[in-house]
Amino acid sequence: MKIGIVGIGLIGGSIAKELKTRSLGTIQVYGTDKNPDHVAKANSLALVDEMLSEEELFEQAEVIFIAIPVNKINDELGRFLDKTRPDQVLVDTGSTKRFICRGISNHPNRSRFVAAHPLAGTEFSGPDAALLDLFKGKKCIICEKHKSAEDALEKALKVFNFLGMDSFYMDPEEHDKHLAFVSHLSHVSSFTLSLTVQEIENDQNQIYNLASTGFESTARLAKSNAITWGPIFDANKEYLVEAIDLYINNLEKFKQSILTNNIKESTNLMLKANEISEVLDGIALNK
Amino acid sequence: MKIGIVGIGLIGGSIAKELKTRSLGTIQVYGTDKNPDHVAKANSLALVDEMLSEEELFEQAEVIFIAIPVNKINDELGRFLDKTRPDQVLVDTGSTKRFICRGISNHPNRSRFVAAHPLAGTEFSGPDAALLDLFKGKKCIICEKHKSAEDALEKALKVFNFLGMDSFYMDPEEHDKHLAFVSHLSHVSSFTLSLTVQEIENDQNQIYNLASTGFESTARLAKSNAITWGPIFDANKEYLVEAIDLYINNLEKFKQSILTNNIKESTNLMLKANEISEVLDGIALNK
Repeated sequence: MKIGIVGIGLIGGSIAKELKTRSLGTIQVYGTDKNPDHVAKANSLALVDEMLSEEELFEQAEVIFIAIPVNKINDELGRFLDKTRPDQVLVDTGSTKRFICRGISNHPNRSRFVAAHPLAGTEFSGPDAALLDLFKGKKCIICEKHKSAEDALEKALKVFNFLGMDSFYMDPEEHDKHLAFVSHLSHVSSFTLSLTVQEIENDQNQIYNLASTGFESTARLAKSNAITWGPIFDANKEYLVEAIDLYINNLEKFKQSILTNNIKESTNLMLKANEISEVLDGIALNK
Repeated sequence: MKIGIVGIGLIGGSIAKELKTRSLGTIQVYGTDKNPDHVAKANSLALVDEMLSEEELFEQAEVIFIAIPVNKINDELGRFLDKTRPDQVLVDTGSTKRFICRGISNHPNRSRFVAAHPLAGTEFSGPDAALLDLFKGKKCIICEKHKSAEDALEKALKVFNFLGMDSFYMDPEEHDKHLAFVSHLSHVSSFTLSLTVQEIENDQNQIYNLASTGFESTARLAKSNAITWGPIFDANKEYLVEAIDLYINNLEKFKQSILTNNIKESTNLMLKANEISEVLDGIALNK
């Protein structure tokens, strides 16, 4: 099988590394990237069998993954689909889904496309960040499966399965709504925690001296790449703003309970928050 | 050396475990706890050499650590100090410092007391949560060192050093202000993230399916114990509310940049947030 990957960053690079390393030569992995530094890095790290031009990659590959920022996916997906042949499958990996699905919903080659979101990542970016086992035991969401041809869906699922992922189906609107709360809001809260702490601590050494592993965990996502996350926030604006508003609302509630020494209320809020423990333990166990 | 520990939970239990395990019998470790379950657990886990009554412990130990919730420290510290002899040292481990220091500032035995905050912990609690190496490579803050007798300070530092900690000095007011931002705010933001996500997701399985390791990291502190954290929030109310207000302010700024498609502004906020990366990497490296 020949697999092409457009964009050799954290996600594209990790897909490439996994396929190339674990397939024992039964899968040929081709990459393409507009960034010459990424091309050089992908070659020097041997993430792929060969880096090609976009034209050559679309010539060669049977399944093509698009792993570029979501705004670029929105801009380029129609053009990619124009040159997708009936024997090829195009799969995206974007973290938002409704605009991507909407943008190509009437494209004559729509059935060759599979809208996917592999739920995996780290706070790092670029080919250097590519990791083996990044996808292992994680979930992959597929949207609008009824709009993909059966053989296209089957091939995409086969690759995600090879990466170690369980796939499940979701409506793109539902996907974007839920991910706004469960993923995008976490990033906003971490970025903002970092900003707030830096606002009163001018000296990074002081933060280092005072911070424990709790702060490190909560602020970890503040290291995330603006080039990846800016477009995700933008593409999921409505739901994300709803999530931020609800979050601020709950912060105000918490603050009021502290301000008014209402220990019963703050305890109730913490006990309710504690109820997420099992979910978190499950994720940590599976890391 | 004989060391007593009042309160065998996460912190007291971890101090006990470390001293008992690493001292090769050169330190005798005594514990006391009002909770019979903690007494039974401490015995069955052999965290201490012996569980004693409070009276017996104050009879025996040369250095006595107080590792109970900060509200209980505030309530009990005067009474503990009443029975501290001139050859004994009393050390607290509370996460807030100004009310604790203020409460005993005129006590005749003040010089036998060392106000300390070992910056270490996990999201778990109770004797079961006791960990070896919890304090290794971490910092310990000592407040009002000039109010402690030289020999008392020296003994306390010796024990913290044995636990693997670097100690440094801080004014109690400064301590509480900075910790509100760097530690307590992280907890509030995690608790609130959990509340917000649970508000739109009724089904914990759904959260599990959608959440990645990023959410797990950001929400981890939402597992923290209300009995520990309620009194900390309460004792540090003024500074914590200041921190929450600034945090909400920054969230509003972030939200506005997203709402108005002001990519330049949101990118600037993320790049500024990224500046904490080195600090976080340093903490992670030291875990």
